[in-house]
Amino acid sequence: MKMPVPKYFVVRSILEARLERDYSVGDKIPTELELCREFEVSRITIQQALSLLESDGLIKREQGRGTFYTRPPTRRQDAKPNQLLQSLLRNQPNGFARLISARMTTASARIAERLRVEKGSRVAAVDRVGFIDGDPVIFITAYMPGDVGAELLKDEAALTRSTLGSLVQSAAGIRISSVVQTIAATLADPGFAGHLGLELGAPVLEGERTYYDEDGRPVIFSDAFYRADRHRFVVDLNGAVPDPL
Amino acid sequence: MKMPVPKYFVVRSILEARLERDYSVGDKIPTELELCREFEVSRITIQQALSLLESDGLIKREQGRGTFYTRPPTRRQDAKPNQLLQSLLRNQPNGFARLISARMTTASARIAERLRVEKGSRVAAVDRVGFIDGDPVIFITAYMPGDVGAELLKDEAALTRSTLGSLVQSAAGIRISSVVQTIAATLADPGFAGHLGLELGAPVLEGERTYYDEDGRPVIFSDAFYRADRHRFVVDLNGAVPDPL
Repeated sequence: MKMPVPKYFVVRSILEARLERDYSVGDKIPTELELCREFEVSRITIQQALSLLESDGLIKREQGRGTFYTRPPTRRQDAKPNQLLQSLLRNQPNGFARLISARMTTASARIAERLRVEKGSRVAAVDRVGFIDGDPVIFITAYMPGDVGAELLKDEAALTRSTLGSLVQSAAGIRISSVVQTIAATLADPGFAGHLGLELGAPVLEGERTYYDEDGRPVIFSDAFYRADRHRFVVDLNGAVPDPL
Repeated sequence: MKMPVPKYFVVRSILEARLERDYSVGDKIPTELELCREFEVSRITIQQALSLLESDGLIKREQGRGTFYTRPPTRRQDAKPNQLLQSLLRNQPNGFARLISARMTTASARIAERLRVEKGSRVAAVDRVGFIDGDPVIFITAYMPGDVGAELLKDEAALTRSTLGSLVQSAAGIRISSVVQTIAATLADPGFAGHLGLELGAPVLEGERTYYDEDGRPVIFSDAFYRADRHRFVVDLNGAVPDPL
C-alpha cells in the first residue's frame, strides 16, 4: 500500500478542515495567490492541493469566476465519550467490526504501566477495525494481562461478534466496575493509517481507555484511533456549566 | 513568520507520537532503513526527521550502536471536558491569557447556525491565547450575537482578566444555563498555528462550545484549538461503564 506524505496533502487537509469550519455551499474561496501567501508554499503546491479537493468534489474551479465550495463533507459520527464503538455499530444499519489480529505479545513500557504488569511480560493483544456504511472509522488495539486474555484469543469467531468486556466476564469471571478514558489528537501512523484508509499525517482522535475490575485491577487497556473526518465526541455540560474564557 | 510544511516534519510528528506511545527512555528505535520501508519515503527524509527529534532532545544517535529514545516528551495538561482554560490557568502558577483581537465581524454560515442569527449579520468576535509556564497551549475564538457582545468589546482590559460568561452576565444581565461541547481532531491552520508556536499540519484538538441562556438562546459560541502535545481530555466513566469493543 502506497502512503505518501506530500506537502500538498497537508495543505489539502488543512483546507478541508477550514472549508468545513468557515464556508457554506456556493461560497467563493480565496485565490491561489492568496493561499500561496498565507501558507508560504509554492503555487504548484496550492494547485495540487486544490486539485485533490476538486477531485473529491469539495470545490469547483470555474474559468474566470474563481473557486467555489460545492459540497459539505460527510457528516461526522457524533458519540458521547462513554459510548463505545460496539453500541455505535449496533445502532447503525451498516455497522460491523473486523478482526485484524489476535496475538500474544510482550508489554511495552506504556502497556505495562497501564495494566500494572512487568515490562516485557506476556499480554494478549487484539486489533479490530470498525466500519460504518462500508467505511473504516475506528482502529482499536486492546491489551489484557496474559492470565486474563490468553484464553480469549483462542476463539476468533467470538472476538468478531462479542465485546471484550462480555468475553472477559464469561470466560474469566471478571466484572468491569470502572473505566477511565482520555481523548487526544494525533496524526495517522503507518501502523493503522492503511486500515483506516488514511494517508500518513491525517488528523486522528486517539482515545485511551483503562477498564478496572471490582478490586481496582486494570484488566483491559485499549487504544482507539478514530478518523477525525468521520468522528467527534459530544459532551453535554448541563449541570456543570463552566466559565467561558 | 515562516511556516513550512516539509514532508520530514510530518514524519517527525508521527514518530514523536509513536515514541511517546510505545517507547521508554533507553529503548532502541528502528533503523533508518526500517523507517524508510515503513513510511515509504526517502532515506534523506527519515534522516531529516530524526535530526529534528535529536535536536529537540527526544532521541540520541550513537555511532555504531543505533538510535535511542532519551527523553519522554513534556507531560500533557490533563483537563476534564467541562474544565475551562480559565480555571486551568487559575490553578497554574504561571498561567495567563492574552487578548489577540476583539472586533465586530459578519457571521459565516457556521457561526450563524450556532448562534441562530442570519448569515452575514454582525457578531462580536474575541481571539485569545492561553499560556501555561510561558508556552501557548490554547487559541480560542469566541463569538457573540451583536446585541450581546458589542458592548463587551469596548473594555479590552476587562477581556484580558474576566471570563466572557461573567462579562455577559454583568454587562448584559444574561445567565448561562447550559453548555454543549464537541471534541474533534484537526491540523494546525495558518489562522492560529503561529499563535500556538506550531508548524502547519501539527495535530490539534478542537473543542466547539455553545452556551445557552435560560431561555435556550445561544449567547456565546467558542472554537478552541489546543496543542495536542500539551493537552488532552480525561473522562471518568465511573457509573457509566461501556462495553469495550
